[in-house]
Amino acid sequence: MLHFADRLAESVHQCGNPVCLGIDPRWESLPRSIRESHDASSLESIAHAFAVFGLRVLELVGDRVPVIKPQAAFFEACGPDGLRALQAILERCRQMKRVTILDAKRGDIAGTATAYADAAFAGIPVEGHILPVWDADALTVNPYLGRDALEPFLQSARQSQRGVFVLVRTSNPGAGLFQDLRCDGRPLYEHVGQAVANWNHESIGECGYGDVGAVVGATHPRELMELRAQMPEVWFLIPGYGAQGGSADDVRHGLRGDGLGAIVNSSRGLTFPFAPDDPNWESAIRDATTRMIEALRPR
Amino acid sequence: MLHFADRLAESVHQCGNPVCLGIDPRWESLPRSIRESHDASSLESIAHAFAVFGLRVLELVGDRVPVIKPQAAFFEACGPDGLRALQAILERCRQMKRVTILDAKRGDIAGTATAYADAAFAGIPVEGHILPVWDADALTVNPYLGRDALEPFLQSARQSQRGVFVLVRTSNPGAGLFQDLRCDGRPLYEHVGQAVANWNHESIGECGYGDVGAVVGATHPRELMELRAQMPEVWFLIPGYGAQGGSADDVRHGLRGDGLGAIVNSSRGLTFPFAPDDPNWESAIRDATTRMIEALRPR
Repeated sequence: MLHFADRLAESVHQCGNPVCLGIDPRWESLPRSIRESHDASSLESIAHAFAVFGLRVLELVGDRVPVIKPQAAFFEACGPDGLRALQAILERCRQMKRVTILDAKRGDIAGTATAYADAAFAGIPVEGHILPVWDADALTVNPYLGRDALEPFLQSARQSQRGVFVLVRTSNPGAGLFQDLRCDGRPLYEHVGQAVANWNHESIGECGYGDVGAVVGATHPRELMELRAQMPEVWFLIPGYGAQGGSADDVRHGLRGDGLGAIVNSSRGLTFPFAPDDPNWESAIRDATTRMIEALRPR
Repeated sequence: MLHFADRLAESVHQCGNPVCLGIDPRWESLPRSIRESHDASSLESIAHAFAVFGLRVLELVGDRVPVIKPQAAFFEACGPDGLRALQAILERCRQMKRVTILDAKRGDIAGTATAYADAAFAGIPVEGHILPVWDADALTVNPYLGRDALEPFLQSARQSQRGVFVLVRTSNPGAGLFQDLRCDGRPLYEHVGQAVANWNHESIGECGYGDVGAVVGATHPRELMELRAQMPEVWFLIPGYGAQGGSADDVRHGLRGDGLGAIVNSSRGLTFPFAPDDPNWESAIRDATTRMIEALRPR
């Protein structure tokens, strides 16, 4: 298997766009036809509806985008059955040869971090066997616990040619409460960004990017521009496009001149661009994907 | 149901000790008798072994300690079946009327945070029903994303009389990389601690403590003492006792004069105080629990 950064670059090249399709299923937003054939009083049935919807979205537009990012929270909210739905979606993505990011924002120390990481990537080692769990290409992680807490994620990722995306500057309105605190003359998120750039530099692929990415919200274009300059070898995962307010012009600051360097996520904007009663929801999803691809086309 | 802080205080009073029993199952540490009756090549069987072991630990010592804290990572590492094991353990804790903390260190924004929180606490609301998922009394959360990202956790917790424990100063050796950065004249963890104290002050129970706790490692006794003074109304969850190096004298700095204010976690030290081949593992667990209770007895 290729270096994670190279697989990501290849996938973006092949699709000709940097779109990351976020799969964040919510019962109340599902098409009426799917809700009507499931039972809202059973988590098992809701989880099944999430799988049916997610797999249909992949059929509709999955081959047009380079990256798919399921949000663990919505699947976890259905309990064990929800996580089976998540497995089904990740498996279909692998069959379609899409790069997958499990958006779980994990972070813990030592052996606990290893358990999260091995589950996310190649699988957990038990008595000489490797047992796959989520088998995603990348995982989002939280930096607050420091390098030794991130180390098990990096090790597990590198052993299996996967990647991590570290939260640097998140897309929520209140992100600055701690992230913007000035520490030794510059904001905390820049310290985190510098650490990410250093960790990333330890493993650079043929494409010139490394395997430790940064999550930087589209809703902060100035910070995005500064971080792009500070971290030229780092892949960015940019949330906040569309529904959260980030525009195509905003996210362009995250791309390098070669058209690489950033993937731009949209979840609700791509998967729920329809009223729940709209019978034409499938074409709405196709059209929303086309519009986002067009909007982000290199000028 | 009582305010979370009051239930915690009552549980500590009744047991006469502040021990938090961490359940972090690892296949290679399980007693030989449990491993031999399970299949190491199947995640379903490993998950079943985790449930058998965890439930037996609860039978052995669960009624002697006020708080039980399962670590989500080790259950998640077994996939959906692992999470069924987690549910079984949490359910038994409820039957035993123990206070439970789901140690998952979650953190995300807006509706995603709500999904994590509702699942952790009372359940997810769907078309007028509430569907329980983990039904824990408290959840550990990561502060890096800021107040608006923590808000859904606080809201969901308060609606159902539950609590959150925010990471302030973690117990790992490299915790200081970002947590100790000096921001406007004091370390980042003190800024986080101050924010936690403020949020906590919004909802104080009869006992004088609130529903937003702080995770502060036993491995940093000086910081623990300072934070205790800075946050008198905040319940501390103190990891790092025992296997990670924190002593009874270290953690005493986290307790207030009334014997309340902190719960002290041990996971490996209480649940795996035996060699995997030791047939007397059950009495080893009983003895380790007795020793920790004695060591932390008020002087």
